[in-house]
Amino acid sequence: MQHTHISLAHGNGGRFMRELINELFARHLANPLLNTRTDAAALPEFNGEVMITTDGFTVQPLEFPGGDIGALAIHGTVNDLAVAGAEPLYLSLNAFIEEGLEIAQLERIIQSLATAAKHAGVNIVTGDTKVVRRGEGGGLYLATTGVGLKHPGQNLSMDQIQSGDRLLVSGPVGDHGTAVMLAREQFGMRGDLQSDAASVLPLTRALREFSGLRFMRDPTRGGLASVMQEIHQATGFGLRLWQTAIPVREPVTAVCEMLGYDPLYLACEGRVVAVIAENQAEDALAQWQDLPQGTDAALVGKITTTGQRVILETDIGGERILEELEDDPLPRIC
Amino acid sequence: MQHTHISLAHGNGGRFMRELINELFARHLANPLLNTRTDAAALPEFNGEVMITTDGFTVQPLEFPGGDIGALAIHGTVNDLAVAGAEPLYLSLNAFIEEGLEIAQLERIIQSLATAAKHAGVNIVTGDTKVVRRGEGGGLYLATTGVGLKHPGQNLSMDQIQSGDRLLVSGPVGDHGTAVMLAREQFGMRGDLQSDAASVLPLTRALREFSGLRFMRDPTRGGLASVMQEIHQATGFGLRLWQTAIPVREPVTAVCEMLGYDPLYLACEGRVVAVIAENQAEDALAQWQDLPQGTDAALVGKITTTGQRVILETDIGGERILEELEDDPLPRIC
Repeated sequence: MQHTHISLAHGNGGRFMRELINELFARHLANPLLNTRTDAAALPEFNGEVMITTDGFTVQPLEFPGGDIGALAIHGTVNDLAVAGAEPLYLSLNAFIEEGLEIAQLERIIQSLATAAKHAGVNIVTGDTKVVRRGEGGGLYLATTGVGLKHPGQNLSMDQIQSGDRLLVSGPVGDHGTAVMLAREQFGMRGDLQSDAASVLPLTRALREFSGLRFMRDPTRGGLASVMQEIHQATGFGLRLWQTAIPVREPVTAVCEMLGYDPLYLACEGRVVAVIAENQAEDALAQWQDLPQGTDAALVGKITTTGQRVILETDIGGERILEELEDDPLPRIC
Repeated sequence: MQHTHISLAHGNGGRFMRELINELFARHLANPLLNTRTDAAALPEFNGEVMITTDGFTVQPLEFPGGDIGALAIHGTVNDLAVAGAEPLYLSLNAFIEEGLEIAQLERIIQSLATAAKHAGVNIVTGDTKVVRRGEGGGLYLATTGVGLKHPGQNLSMDQIQSGDRLLVSGPVGDHGTAVMLAREQFGMRGDLQSDAASVLPLTRALREFSGLRFMRDPTRGGLASVMQEIHQATGFGLRLWQTAIPVREPVTAVCEMLGYDPLYLACEGRVVAVIAENQAEDALAQWQDLPQGTDAALVGKITTTGQRVILETDIGGERILEELEDDPLPRIC
């Protein structure tokens, strides 16, 4: 391509668009199922129950310590299938590109996306690009839809949750939200904190044989506290979290105190929350802690009884109700 | 919901987002496979070859004569499966909503989307919403990914195209592009022209039994001429179009002459171009003309031989080369 920046002509169905798709997107995403000349991709036969999920990505800035919107677009959708008890196989990709975006930056992001897809073992099989006018986008928005195969015999659902079940988290919370926040220039701060954005497949696969595993979720928008709220609202059960048990990195705590955020409400992009029967919780925790991405995993709370709320037992011995989020703490974080 | 306009809090993972999803999206899109509390939807077993496609939608204005971005987001993806010889079944939906969008308008659009999905016989099974800051979006961008089942025995591909094949178009070209253009206030014009946006399923189903059917495509971005170019580039064959045979509505011609556009390059959103063996072309055309959406269908050209280009035989007896589009004629048209 002879251009350095995206122009409206890259979205018009003509030569510039063809070159952008072939020389940038298709080149990095190449796989036997991707054909830019077809309207729809034919998928190999499925042997099992098919699951599908979708996610949109608007993170700002597009590149941040520990990740970028491209890798995030893979991990977000791969992780939604993973926590649902499925193995991701195929992804579709939509790109909404703002006129004026530097093509070199777009290429870095699509390369990163391709690398993340390869590591997660998924293929991009169909895609679409649109160009929006300067000032009508945030540089780049992505959407991915993922198709995968459910693990036979694993039926994860909030309906399975029982009173007394334990709550595990696979690592420190709030790293992603804090890292993205710090990467925004208006804060005028820089830390060595990195986003936790990653595929959680090793973590979800590690719990596949646990019959007492009830439910998993990746605590993205709204963080750990919002997952607790969702469980509370869906099941009617109370939940109790032990603040001293919840892993939070020191710089996350420091930044949150300075800016007035609560790390329990900040997005993670590579963590899993699992609800599991009490008698299997310690074994499951040990499985996670044996993995590189689970060394800081912790047992952080339990399901209590109907009529209770979501309670945080604070490190000074008090109790705090974790309410559902109302005002926006942090836009464009994922 | 107590709000009249979208705020950033509608994207934060908390109460406002939950209410937006449940009371607006899920209420209109309700079907047995859609569950807003799961990360991924489980699909019923497939009996046949699965096809998948995706499309993004950025049309401006969001509502225009004959359609809106919601209906377009269904038709675009349904039509991509239809022209690939598949029956669409399930869709995922991504919404990128700009802070400040009027909720009443969003609801009209999602209602229209739901109606279009119902008419096309598809269910939205999974979705995601993101809110972007005021000034960082065009009100609403949508993306849909569609999954369908390929008709057994039908193998449509540009590879099937042979010299001498005929080109059919299912109706007048350029209505959608012109209607959207007129709906933009800066032109200061209003016409009674409507977008042709619609599901093309009745048209593609009508040709299912034609063994000589080689390939179909919906001429969206770049219009009829760009489909001709794609065929030319993929096959090496020349193509010859007969201008007097190509259906173009009078107001489309008038507007295009005034504004300097060529209707052959303007988007359609409810038309099909079919390439079919010469000896079946008249029968196929008759099938289309029997349908309400095919009354103006026409045989508009033929595949010539290798080494030739895409030629338009003009109505005054001359010849014009139809080149690949380079500069942008019309941004945000689909």
